[in-house]
Amino acid sequence: MNSPSYPNPSARGAVITLLTDFGASDGYVGAVKGVLLSQAPLATIIDIAHQIPAQDCFSAALALETACSTFPPGTIHIAVVDPGVGSKRRALACRAGEYYFIAPDNGLLTFALKRHPLQLAVNISQVQPPKGRISFTFHARDIFAPAAAHLACGGTLEELGDRAYDLTLLDVPAPTKEENTLTGQVIHIDPFGNLITNITEDDLVSRTPGEILVQIGEYAIKGLAKSYFQGLSGKPLALLGSGGRMEIAVGGKSAKEILGLGRGEAVIVQW
Amino acid sequence: MNSPSYPNPSARGAVITLLTDFGASDGYVGAVKGVLLSQAPLATIIDIAHQIPAQDCFSAALALETACSTFPPGTIHIAVVDPGVGSKRRALACRAGEYYFIAPDNGLLTFALKRHPLQLAVNISQVQPPKGRISFTFHARDIFAPAAAHLACGGTLEELGDRAYDLTLLDVPAPTKEENTLTGQVIHIDPFGNLITNITEDDLVSRTPGEILVQIGEYAIKGLAKSYFQGLSGKPLALLGSGGRMEIAVGGKSAKEILGLGRGEAVIVQW
Amino acid sequence: MNSPSYPNPSARGAVITLLTDFGASDGYVGAVKGVLLSQAPLATIIDIAHQIPAQDCFSAALALETACSTFPPGTIHIAVVDPGVGSKRRALACRAGEYYFIAPDNGLLTFALKRHPLQLAVNISQVQPPKGRISFTFHARDIFAPAAAHLACGGTLEELGDRAYDLTLLDVPAPTKEENTLTGQVIHIDPFGNLITNITEDDLVSRTPGEILVQIGEYAIKGLAKSYFQGLSGKPLALLGSGGRMEIAVGGKSAKEILGLGRGEAVIVQW
Repeated sequence: MNSPSYPNPSARGAVITLLTDFGASDGYVGAVKGVLLSQAPLATIIDIAHQIPAQDCFSAALALETACSTFPPGTIHIAVVDPGVGSKRRALACRAGEYYFIAPDNGLLTFALKRHPLQLAVNISQVQPPKGRISFTFHARDIFAPAAAHLACGGTLEELGDRAYDLTLLDVPAPTKEENTLTGQVIHIDPFGNLITNITEDDLVSRTPGEILVQIGEYAIKGLAKSYFQGLSGKPLALLGSGGRMEIAVGGKSAKEILGLGRGEAVIVQW
Repeated sequence: MNSPSYPNPSARGAVITLLTDFGASDGYVGAVKGVLLSQAPLATIIDIAHQIPAQDCFSAALALETACSTFPPGTIHIAVVDPGVGSKRRALACRAGEYYFIAPDNGLLTFALKRHPLQLAVNISQVQPPKGRISFTFHARDIFAPAAAHLACGGTLEELGDRAYDLTLLDVPAPTKEENTLTGQVIHIDPFGNLITNITEDDLVSRTPGEILVQIGEYAIKGLAKSYFQGLSGKPLALLGSGGRMEIAVGGKSAKEILGLGRGEAVIVQW
Repeated sequence: MNSPSYPNPSARGAVITLLTDFGASDGYVGAVKGVLLSQAPLATIIDIAHQIPAQDCFSAALALETACSTFPPGTIHIAVVDPGVGSKRRALACRAGEYYFIAPDNGLLTFALKRHPLQLAVNISQVQPPKGRISFTFHARDIFAPAAAHLACGGTLEELGDRAYDLTLLDVPAPTKEENTLTGQVIHIDPFGNLITNITEDDLVSRTPGEILVQIGEYAIKGLAKSYFQGLSGKPLALLGSGGRMEIAVGGKSAKEILGLGRGEAVIVQW
């Protein structure tokens, strides 16, 4: 397999992003950054988010999807939410679309890989951990950061380990489609309390906006709004969010709190 | 209008700061940073804070004031707390004092512009959104970041849009002054639980420290302390905080919790 | 005293890390970063964590220990949790091992100095505060950041102030050792809810793993696990964490919540 055709990130300092559930009250994030800077001194380290709910791979996978695609080609995205650290779950480094992704093999890449086709994945086995040995509890520091640094310095995926097949993907509920009805659900709540559903722009695109009726909980919403602003009166509205998914919002407020609804809630669209 | 006289930030990579209410549990902050790095690869991105209370423009405006003035001339400050996204509210790019400010026109710049006189503001209309179109729900990604990248690469404000006048300013309560009495209020609570008031050093400066009596809730405080340390005994104290405002604190503890007081609480200073 | 023998950090831009309890909802962190960039324009600023529990020096000291050692030689670590700001507590700048540390003299360096032997400490008195004067309430902005910038630009410790002796150290409880019993306690709870104890790998190393019995609260745990993964069934396990301390965990869950235990809880190891 040839080296990637897009610019070698080592030329002026690769961009390495970090997405974790390590929180902002401890030294774990810092330990990872230290390894990156020690092994790839010219890299630019960018925080995506570090307060993904603990062990919540689904939220992390969605956050990665939201963030990854605006970065320059060659960016190395590290995502670590890792309840299985120390087990036999694989440690992945991948090239997908124009990016590199480094993560445990637990589904974190599920949404990112839908947008960026997988080209090559390897099971990381050849890295230089900072203390010369790999712990059983902190692979972000001992495996994922060294792997990212290796790529940032111009190393290849192939040098990191053997090719990996059949990556683990999260079981993402798909909306069910009947003749005049689409039944989805809330899959995520964003920091503003917007209820993000699994119904996408593509699911709705063949229909004319304004003619749909959206039901969620005890609420019935007529038509798609264009922006949160239309809902400032405190009533729920449905709109296509910035990530291409239909969401239920209450303009300027938290739909989660005002409607009292959460993840898993059914959302029915009728024409 | 001439180009700015201070150093062109593109020379060695502009400094771009980010202040939002996007939280640390989602991918929104990352999406903005990706646009900045894609469109202004040499920029240095600096996080100010991303957990401003959701939709709280007043808190964001104060945080921007606290942070902005220590940065080098030419720094580009992006502030996005944006309940009106998708409405007709303007998207501003300004030069004020030695800085650039980029924000929705909803009052976020109220305090910053008191410290850094406005020179030119434009209503951003000419930008290159990352996907070629501007969403109705995520202008930080689609408008504000591209505008900042434009400036970071040496572009001018004038190229971003038409001149904007009469910027929206927050309605900041001013203390009322009577002969021997100044009546203000708590306008902000900082992360330590200190109660920040709208009474400034200037309001007090003509008087001699040590002779005042400060009343808040059921508490009466004699004189101004110099530091939090004087209050370690658990009693409330009044002092001039690092931002030049009088604040009520309890040394080493949270005044908010110990006194049970919050935003809007009246503060009376008597001589 | 000679200048340090490791590479002058100004050569390509020093790495400066930041660890504080300033939170993510205000402008304090930004104000510090602005000073650093104004006075050391080439420095690379790295966030360790900013949501250390307010005024909690012990947690900050542990976080600093967790993070500091993976950074490249010459890194300047700033740690500011500072309940005594404005009192007579000293402001320290130190060289220890391969690193610089800058912090109030309140014990924040307790754990870091165990790993990196102190070479020289000074009481910072010669700095250039951003506004020309030093406030009584915000030394991170007015003293610590200027001191770090001074070092980042190639300045020496000696230029910052007089030598300081007898640094303040936290009173860290040591485990008590009897013939077949080691009695320690929980000293920290990490963001995953793992209970970190004061019992270290060294305390256990002369014994064979698998033969110990660990008691905490009403729970008895047989043997040391290697990874969190072994505990996925919801039962508590004991293991050596990534920082070399024994911790009590519940695989994939929060031990703090499931066991209902906290800091100070006794932990007894028997052979």
